[in-house]
Amino acid sequence: MAAPESGARRSGSTRRQFLLGGTVAGVGAAAAIGIDLALTPSITTVASPSAPLNGDEIVPFHGAHQAGIDTDAQAHGTFIALDLHDDVDRDQLRRLMRVLSDDAERLTQGRAALADSEPELALTPARLTVTFAFGPGFVSRAGGQAPAWLQPLPAFGVDQLRDEFNDGDLLLQIAADDPVTVAHATRMLLKDARSFADVRWTQQGFRRAYGSVAPGTTMRNLFGQVDGTTNPRPGTTHFDDVVWSSDGWLAGGTGMVVRRIHMNLDKWDKLDRPGREQSVGRSLTSGAPLTGTAEHDEPDFAAKTTIGFPVIPEFSHMRRARPDDETQRIFRRAYNYDERPIGTEVSDSGLIFVSFQADIDAQFTPIQRRLDELDLLNEWTTPIGSAVFAVPPGCSPGGYIGETLLA
Amino acid sequence: MAAPESGARRSGSTRRQFLLGGTVAGVGAAAAIGIDLALTPSITTVASPSAPLNGDEIVPFHGAHQAGIDTDAQAHGTFIALDLHDDVDRDQLRRLMRVLSDDAERLTQGRAALADSEPELALTPARLTVTFAFGPGFVSRAGGQAPAWLQPLPAFGVDQLRDEFNDGDLLLQIAADDPVTVAHATRMLLKDARSFADVRWTQQGFRRAYGSVAPGTTMRNLFGQVDGTTNPRPGTTHFDDVVWSSDGWLAGGTGMVVRRIHMNLDKWDKLDRPGREQSVGRSLTSGAPLTGTAEHDEPDFAAKTTIGFPVIPEFSHMRRARPDDETQRIFRRAYNYDERPIGTEVSDSGLIFVSFQADIDAQFTPIQRRLDELDLLNEWTTPIGSAVFAVPPGCSPGGYIGETLLA
Ligand code: HEM
Ligand code: HEM
Repeated sequence: MAAPESGARRSGSTRRQFLLGGTVAGVGAAAAIGIDLALTPSITTVASPSAPLNGDEIVPFHGAHQAGIDTDAQAHGTFIALDLHDDVDRDQLRRLMRVLSDDAERLTQGRAALADSEPELALTPARLTVTFAFGPGFVSRAGGQAPAWLQPLPAFGVDQLRDEFNDGDLLLQIAADDPVTVAHATRMLLKDARSFADVRWTQQGFRRAYGSVAPGTTMRNLFGQVDGTTNPRPGTTHFDDVVWSSDGWLAGGTGMVVRRIHMNLDKWDKLDRPGREQSVGRSLTSGAPLTGTAEHDEPDFAAKTTIGFPVIPEFSHMRRARPDDETQRIFRRAYNYDERPIGTEVSDSGLIFVSFQADIDAQFTPIQRRLDELDLLNEWTTPIGSAVFAVPPGCSPGGYIGETLLA
Repeated sequence: MAAPESGARRSGSTRRQFLLGGTVAGVGAAAAIGIDLALTPSITTVASPSAPLNGDEIVPFHGAHQAGIDTDAQAHGTFIALDLHDDVDRDQLRRLMRVLSDDAERLTQGRAALADSEPELALTPARLTVTFAFGPGFVSRAGGQAPAWLQPLPAFGVDQLRDEFNDGDLLLQIAADDPVTVAHATRMLLKDARSFADVRWTQQGFRRAYGSVAPGTTMRNLFGQVDGTTNPRPGTTHFDDVVWSSDGWLAGGTGMVVRRIHMNLDKWDKLDRPGREQSVGRSLTSGAPLTGTAEHDEPDFAAKTTIGFPVIPEFSHMRRARPDDETQRIFRRAYNYDERPIGTEVSDSGLIFVSFQADIDAQFTPIQRRLDELDLLNEWTTPIGSAVFAVPPGCSPGGYIGETLLA
């Protein structure tokens, strides 16, 4: 369902560095390492102890794009949607985004926020990224031109949306490999936002811990499926084409879909292994297509069983999700969720489905529509929340996120 | 408030190994490494990839004591209290504990549970431990003799307990460095428990990620305090004396207190740094006592300021928590919690205070009583849940946890 595991250290921010003149930007007190920046991962460390610590790793804040999109997904991701107070106007939006950008710049570089109440907790960035995204309400309050796709998705038959997980004016995606880092950054940002906005919803997600599995391993979701195999790779032209917008104030930014999808594990557990594999069209063990042996083998959709049925069934998620049309591509960067079960419930689990694409109407919605019509996986999955945001581009030192809309 | 960070690799299970004849027990398919076991950490890995992965590290399941007590605290800890169904008798308790012990043995060793519905998720043990503990209801249902201290703690003035976080018949402490591992193990155990018991409450906690800070670093709580400095060290006689019971079926086991303590971060943020440091009696930066310079310096409680006040104030948490009487010692192994904030709330944070001690009445209660009478920290902390359990000893291969009570 998403990008490679956080164990992988590849970073997509080479372009960010390049645009900033070939040096690693925003590293602050940290020593930038690496000689050939075009070939060197952009992750640097705050200090240089005898053994490098995961906790010291830094993702640059400044650049053409915001971090947290082409960044290898970190182990923990918190998504917070805010509702702007009624009296917040364009000037105040500018102030808000300046303050939050400053917080994000400092915290992601392993420095305390201004007036940080627990500065010691800021010293372990652990690849922290903070990504800001604007809902329709934010853009209209800013008096800006909203892209046509910046509105709630059309209703789908599978949806059982609960308002507590829908929509929002401003989204913060706060992700790092360390849960203490995420908790502290979340609090600092919300403190600074609170005179402008209230929390509408929060979703906390996780993937494998940093270094838990081999670098480059595709994540598994809580169904046990290898999830994220067929996904554009950051650093490729294909990824850039799928993800980055070139449209007005959004140029260098992207469109973001956040859907909370409940996964019925109890029901799933009743399905046998062949049934599970057919529901997606891939092997559970390796993630390979049912017509292949290795995860990244090309699926053969024409292959038939001895009795003449497609090996990769017509109703399989992979078959339904894969467009004939190359323009209908999305970049998935999902997190698992697992809430505290109560009473006879044994788990309350699912996926925080997150996808980035330049044009949601053209790229995401056709796929979701096809899955709505037919996808065996729908038997075990239910969308219970849905939100759409415009992710503005990154900024340079001295700038702030949202300046192309608010300046 | 607890043991060293999960970054540390020291393990307290040397004794476990010794009791099992000098070999690492329960490693299953894994290759036991190490030549001199008395000197070698007991952590082994499932596979041997080119670089060892945190996710492959294993904590032995069998031994004189249950794992998860003298084990360096892992990054994630989930605490689940179950209520037994009314019709569960002693025979069924035995069946329950056999099944759960088998699950725990397999999962902690990186193997799928019997009838594991997502076996692939079991292959990354990430130092998983599962620790079982019995509430008063379990012991009486078993027809066993309950230690005098196995009952709800006396009411304290500071308490604002909510029944949703109190008591319970059977506690599962499920801890690992990987959140996916914890989610999967939790589900497998609860599935097997569900025909015997319902979930009463669940608490999910975290500390720094594995490898995020230097090994041996004491954890920080969400107040930013260095928490766990003065704590018995696993592997010492002092630790053994404080923690392990020698009493009847509980010999080799211990007493466990789990208190959910809300921390009012908004109020805490209004306090200046000197005020914060005086509330505990230690420096925020280093964790050193206010009379010293390094974290582990001995505090000088007699030292006075120039105007004649104690440097470590009378009302400070450290002073109040430290007994004159050497018998009143406890071993703290706490986790931070940070729930999803809603509305104008900016965070809902606190500590899952967990302590182990052989005799709760003699060791824990006097400290809590003193803190109840006077402790400046009470201004910012509120106990909202409280539970007491008896942790049975460990078991050998072929045995099960609880056999000393149920066999
Ligand atoms: C809980 C819900 C979902 C689960 C468990 C799930 C799981 C999976 C799995 C296991 C794969 C195959 C491996 C891979 O290529 O990543 C896959 C592929 C894919 N999924 Fe999903 N998915 C879910 C929801 C969605 C949604 C809502 C969308 C978009 C509307 C989507 C779009 C895709 C796409 C585009 C692919 C790649 C298809 C291809 O070209 O091979 N998925 N998903
Ligand atoms: C949210 C609540 C609490 C917070 C934030 C907190 C924090 C701290 C801190 C920062 C220290 C000093 C460093 C150290 O030695 O660990 C400490 C020490 C200690 N705390 Fe707490 N604590 C809390 C609750 C409790 C409770 C409920 C107890 C037991 C009833 C307790 C017992 C102790 C003990 C025994 C010490 C060591 C004292 C010494 O001998 O120096 N604490 N705590």
